[in-house]
Amino acid sequence: MKKSIFLLSSSSVHGYGFLEYNKSAIQSFFEDIGGPIVFVPFAAAREEWDSYTEKVARFFATIGIAVRGLHTVDRERIFTDYKAIFIGGGNTFRLLHELQLRSLLQDIRAAVLDGRVAYMGSSAGTNMATKSICTTNDMPIVYPQQGFEALNLFTYQINPHYLDPEPETKHKGETRDQRIAEFHQENSTPVVGLREGSYILMGPDFGTTHKLFIGGQPGAKVFAPGKKPFEAPRETEFVLTPEGDVV
Amino acid sequence: MKKSIFLLSSSSVHGYGFLEYNKSAIQSFFEDIGGPIVFVPFAAAREEWDSYTEKVARFFATIGIAVRGLHTVDRERIFTDYKAIFIGGGNTFRLLHELQLRSLLQDIRAAVLDGRVAYMGSSAGTNMATKSICTTNDMPIVYPQQGFEALNLFTYQINPHYLDPEPETKHKGETRDQRIAEFHQENSTPVVGLREGSYILMGPDFGTTHKLFIGGQPGAKVFAPGKKPFEAPRETEFVLTPEGDVV
Repeated sequence: MKKSIFLLSSSSVHGYGFLEYNKSAIQSFFEDIGGPIVFVPFAAAREEWDSYTEKVARFFATIGIAVRGLHTVDRERIFTDYKAIFIGGGNTFRLLHELQLRSLLQDIRAAVLDGRVAYMGSSAGTNMATKSICTTNDMPIVYPQQGFEALNLFTYQINPHYLDPEPETKHKGETRDQRIAEFHQENSTPVVGLREGSYILMGPDFGTTHKLFIGGQPGAKVFAPGKKPFEAPRETEFVLTPEGDVV
Repeated sequence: MKKSIFLLSSSSVHGYGFLEYNKSAIQSFFEDIGGPIVFVPFAAAREEWDSYTEKVARFFATIGIAVRGLHTVDRERIFTDYKAIFIGGGNTFRLLHELQLRSLLQDIRAAVLDGRVAYMGSSAGTNMATKSICTTNDMPIVYPQQGFEALNLFTYQINPHYLDPEPETKHKGETRDQRIAEFHQENSTPVVGLREGSYILMGPDFGTTHKLFIGGQPGAKVFAPGKKPFEAPRETEFVLTPEGDVV
């Protein structure tokens, strides 16, 4: 099955330039899909939309793909003139709020599921591909008026920038695992904790097959209510059930 | 001026039992106010409300003050039979959601401003005393249907469990300072970053005088848009202006 959804934990990894750590995976994803890409900079502040888009365009120029900012594209051309939509990182609440204001969520979802555009997300853009933003790490700096529901292309939750607990820490704020356990006190959806440098690849049929591929050396952990968290399979296709089992 | 609002960064500090690190400050706050205390456990999961209340009651028993869980008190008695309301830590979104469902925010705010009850908060309960929950560190596990506005007793923002940036970290998730800077891209309210072990004391007239007292050895940092963050005065009363200046 063709992979058309590509979700990175983060665009920056220690010791690497912007998107560089995952460059070969990005290149191989776009080999089939091609360009141009429409880039969504809404997780950044409005003043930064242009400079953020330029930064993304500079990266993609090195693999021969053109990029344009969604804020500079006529609405009716978004899903006809571009082969892929890339939603970048920043603040997930601000991103969701802007997508709600522009009534873009349904259109993006339909276009990806229909195969009209491929989807790439990074950090906040990865949260946006999931069921809801309820497992973001971001500060709630803006109130999304229409709820926390996101694109639901990946019908579970992802926690990007996942960090394993540090047993030595003296800080008493909740660990990431405690935060995810709190999520599971209120919700039953499995959560994939995606470490920086890792990514998920899947087809638009994820909701029916639940088949995914996790790439990148750091890997990922699966959390489900009432289950001990476990390492997800890496570099191989597998099915993750709605109960959080690997089959 | 009598202090009737007491906001702790956290109830746990490395090396100390529950609330023990700030025990003498708690004792001196309640010397004038007395008991009993009505405790709000809503930041915890519903199954934990009773055990959480018992834990708080065990601590306050050591200073001779009785505690009862708000979920076991008749609504009309909350503001007549109790000298203070204590909102404990946990998940801020879950706490706000429950207070909204019970339509308690206006009543608590009015009772504290009128001097009918004193207010103590810790962590999520400290976020709840401020203008909004927009500077919480918590995961948005529940959607508060009525917005992010909180009690607005402290008319600015607090970031509890405040952590100074770690220059050595390899993790690329946002630092606390970057998160607060993002908040200031969208909002102009000053933010007090309250380190674990520190607390804020103030009177119910804070909104008019903006006079506060920060206690506890670790101290606090003040953030305002367009200003370099600076250490807040410690162990002395001072006025913090709505522009984030100390005068």
